[in-house]
Amino acid sequence: MRHFDELLEQLRNKLLEMSGLVEFSIRESVKSLTERDSLKAKAVLKRESEINQLELDIDEIATTLLALEQPVATDLRFITVAGKINNNLERIGDLAVNIAERSESLLSHARFPVRADIVRLADLAESMVERSLDAFVRKDAEAARRVLVSDDAVDDLRDSIYNELISYMKKNPAAVQQCVDLIFAARSLERMADHSMNIAEGVLFMVEGIDVRHQVRVQVN
Amino acid sequence: MRHFDELLEQLRNKLLEMSGLVEFSIRESVKSLTERDSLKAKAVLKRESEINQLELDIDEIATTLLALEQPVATDLRFITVAGKINNNLERIGDLAVNIAERSESLLSHARFPVRADIVRLADLAESMVERSLDAFVRKDAEAARRVLVSDDAVDDLRDSIYNELISYMKKNPAAVQQCVDLIFAARSLERMADHSMNIAEGVLFMVEGIDVRHQVRVQVN
Repeated sequence: MRHFDELLEQLRNKLLEMSGLVEFSIRESVKSLTERDSLKAKAVLKRESEINQLELDIDEIATTLLALEQPVATDLRFITVAGKINNNLERIGDLAVNIAERSESLLSHARFPVRADIVRLADLAESMVERSLDAFVRKDAEAARRVLVSDDAVDDLRDSIYNELISYMKKNPAAVQQCVDLIFAARSLERMADHSMNIAEGVLFMVEGIDVRHQVRVQVN
Repeated sequence: MRHFDELLEQLRNKLLEMSGLVEFSIRESVKSLTERDSLKAKAVLKRESEINQLELDIDEIATTLLALEQPVATDLRFITVAGKINNNLERIGDLAVNIAERSESLLSHARFPVRADIVRLADLAESMVERSLDAFVRKDAEAARRVLVSDDAVDDLRDSIYNELISYMKKNPAAVQQCVDLIFAARSLERMADHSMNIAEGVLFMVEGIDVRHQVRVQVN
């Protein structure tokens, strides 16, 4: 096996490891919120440095691959997309930390029920991240496209969550802190969904060479 | 001039154009908020598609450069960092749009004064973005390092803004919507500052080959 191919394999494996860690963090952060579980919140905080270190390792392998030789078109697309997915995963890990911190804050105040729409948004965001990563692993453009169509559902849930919490706060000022915590948790879930769409767009670029970002043009390289 | 050098020059110029547009968007979004100016908010919304298009153009040039030949180490670092700065700038543009939208929402409700700490945070975030981009243009590692030390000031301002607005809402439920708008505006400013730090870290990597992200290791390539 050439050194280049070995590094490419390493890049793939590290990215799978990173995906696994980040998916774990999403699940545990959501459970810390919905099940009021401080141990799960702490598990997320503990994983953060591991995810950060993996991000650095993956970026280093990708840069080395680009420096090593002139990659052919498919390898080049894989390497650049892997780099972007890496950065998106690291951000998703940060967002899981944000959610875990909001769970801790909620646990330190009077009990306040998590709204049904937040649970729905959490399920959707979690599934979008998982499906975008599956699409990457299986180089499946159709699966990537199916992630992109969830955008409207995410926006609708976000709007309904914000509106409900803002109305609630107006009538129950004593619950302001808890409502703000949930607004931030919802915002983090929405951003996770955004990152899953970035990943899906990366998969489309990798598989079909089409840049669908910002949906303003379809460009074939 | 070789085709490679021409493209490198193009990458530099497009990135300068992108920087100019994004700095404009930050300034106008902050003014739309502090001066209650709907025209400035609309100016930011109008620029969004231009910034998005530039992001795609810059990514395409960077990818072409990587495919064209095996770049020497300094060029490779410049190209990969330019790609990352590009993505950070696009996100800063999005955040300016978020702030402009919050300004529009604030204009549609009873007048509510913007807190002094938000103006301070806005000044700080704006200056951090400008200084990180200056550091990039001048390849100035010291200037990049000075951006990174502003992190604590940003966190302190954010905490004091959140605490003040949450206390205010508890006593004045009629102002909940305006306080939530300002909390989101402050969050966007904080994220802009985060992106300026990503840019500064990119400059350090480009100039010195040191990866200072996550501050867990100092690695010399």
